Amino acid sequence: MLNEIKKAIDNYLERINKIIDQSLPESNGSHSSLHEAMRYSTLSGGKRIRPLLIYSLGECLKIEKEKLDVPALSIELLHSFSLVHDDLPSMDNDNLRRGLPTTHKKFSESTAILAADALQTLAFGSIADAKSITDEQKVRLISLIGDACGAKGMTGGQSMDLASEGKILKKSELYLMHKMKTGALIHASIMAPFCFTQDYDEKKIQQMDKFGWAIGIAFQIRDDLIDIEESSDVTGKDQNSDIKNDKATWPSHFGKEASYEYCSELLNECLKNLDIFNNEAELLRWLTKYLIDRKN
Amino acid sequence: MLNEIKKAIDNYLERINKIIDQSLPESNGSHSSLHEAMRYSTLSGGKRIRPLLIYSLGECLKIEKEKLDVPALSIELLHSFSLVHDDLPSMDNDNLRRGLPTTHKKFSESTAILAADALQTLAFGSIADAKSITDEQKVRLISLIGDACGAKGMTGGQSMDLASEGKILKKSELYLMHKMKTGALIHASIMAPFCFTQDYDEKKIQQMDKFGWAIGIAFQIRDDLIDIEESSDVTGKDQNSDIKNDKATWPSHFGKEASYEYCSELLNECLKNLDIFNNEAELLRWLTKYLIDRKN
Repeated sequence: MLNEIKKAIDNYLERINKIIDQSLPESNGSHSSLHEAMRYSTLSGGKRIRPLLIYSLGECLKIEKEKLDVPALSIELLHSFSLVHDDLPSMDNDNLRRGLPTTHKKFSESTAILAADALQTLAFGSIADAKSITDEQKVRLISLIGDACGAKGMTGGQSMDLASEGKILKKSELYLMHKMKTGALIHASIMAPFCFTQDYDEKKIQQMDKFGWAIGIAFQIRDDLIDIEESSDVTGKDQNSDIKNDKATWPSHFGKEASYEYCSELLNECLKNLDIFNNEAELLRWLTKYLIDRKN
Repeated sequence: MLNEIKKAIDNYLERINKIIDQSLPESNGSHSSLHEAMRYSTLSGGKRIRPLLIYSLGECLKIEKEKLDVPALSIELLHSFSLVHDDLPSMDNDNLRRGLPTTHKKFSESTAILAADALQTLAFGSIADAKSITDEQKVRLISLIGDACGAKGMTGGQSMDLASEGKILKKSELYLMHKMKTGALIHASIMAPFCFTQDYDEKKIQQMDKFGWAIGIAFQIRDDLIDIEESSDVTGKDQNSDIKNDKATWPSHFGKEASYEYCSELLNECLKNLDIFNNEAELLRWLTKYLIDRKN
């Protein structure tokens, strides 16, 4: 079983990496450093968690992979865009990402800012230009992903995260920050396949809506635990970046033990919500456990 | 006649300013500095040239204003996003914009970066969420605007512009840079109203395609002339910003006289292309002359 799951994941990783590669401008011509920085920011590793969630929920809903490719590409480009800007000196000032210099360290600050800008544009343009889905589906996706990415979602969450440095937040503020900063794009990955379903199954949508928020929050708390527990060799990122920046995180606020406990609770909530599916959710169940128990 | 034109322009300015205002998140809540910076970057003045071009070409093509509002908002948000990032210390490092501190001076560098990011997201999301146009029209618009904004358009042009500092470019490179950096979004403003036309009039599209590029290039050359000829009091921007940054511009390359001559040539080309229209293009003709002869 595990072998089958690993094979399925490898196939999806190969698929999405090829799609990202083909979507990016080639590294030549008179503005090559921009193109190189776009490629470097997206093609140098990356766990592709959001595309994997999209493809594995797509299996449950029996949606063609060619359709799922569209949100998988767009959301992964947006995730990369956000990492490049988050790593900048005026934000988290990180030097390492995926075991390599961050984009502004490898190129320059201006090139990193522009490359990420162009990745965001490409994320929306690639949906509009997709061949495998209808105009109605494109519009639903762009609306969904736009909400998750903008001031009310990921970018708003990053802004709250920066504003939280050195402060003690209320639990509700910390929860909202996690929900926006990390949860919104993961939740959108879970909602995206529903843009392609014909039958409106309200119960499924409601349960997966809960699943999407729970896995998004758990993912961020796990990330913050990894930041303090694992070395750069394991994570490929600067260790203790949150402590250095005096960030408000779940572990800094509630301690490690309570954070692990809350992750377990959220994992159980996720798995319970997947009970609406049978065997077709094996991959999604495995991924859910992996994402909440991972070490890097 | 001039009074009528000024009144029409005032009406359009009031219209687009209200639409921008309503599209932006309010300045309150737990992430208010982001929202404030978004509002500051878009609502503190601005000539609204791209919306005015859209509305005035829309008059020629007899398109409802409610439809034109959609690209007018989106393109103006993208223009504001690009100005905020272009002004950053790692790019043009400008302190003044529209007679006020640039966004990163007024807030902080990180807030400026994120506010502009959120403006870009809103530009695409607002098209998807528009009530006045069809899904097909939305997809055409997002594709058009995405091409104009990304690595092959505005962002690519800004990257070339930064790479050109201290270098002598070939005329073809300088032309390409202007075409991408400034021309692409102005050209998209001229092409956008065609997303709403039913009859495919190839001649009109071809002529306005030429018009769009010519006015875009002329606009940038005029901007570079203003940068060296007018004081901050007139322009509301840092004077001699291009000289300070050792930028490759038309005046620095060919001299002021040749730059004025080329602007005149481009103006004539623009007006010639407007000959397909009769009186309905009065506002567009006036705007064209104004944009290529302006002082700020």
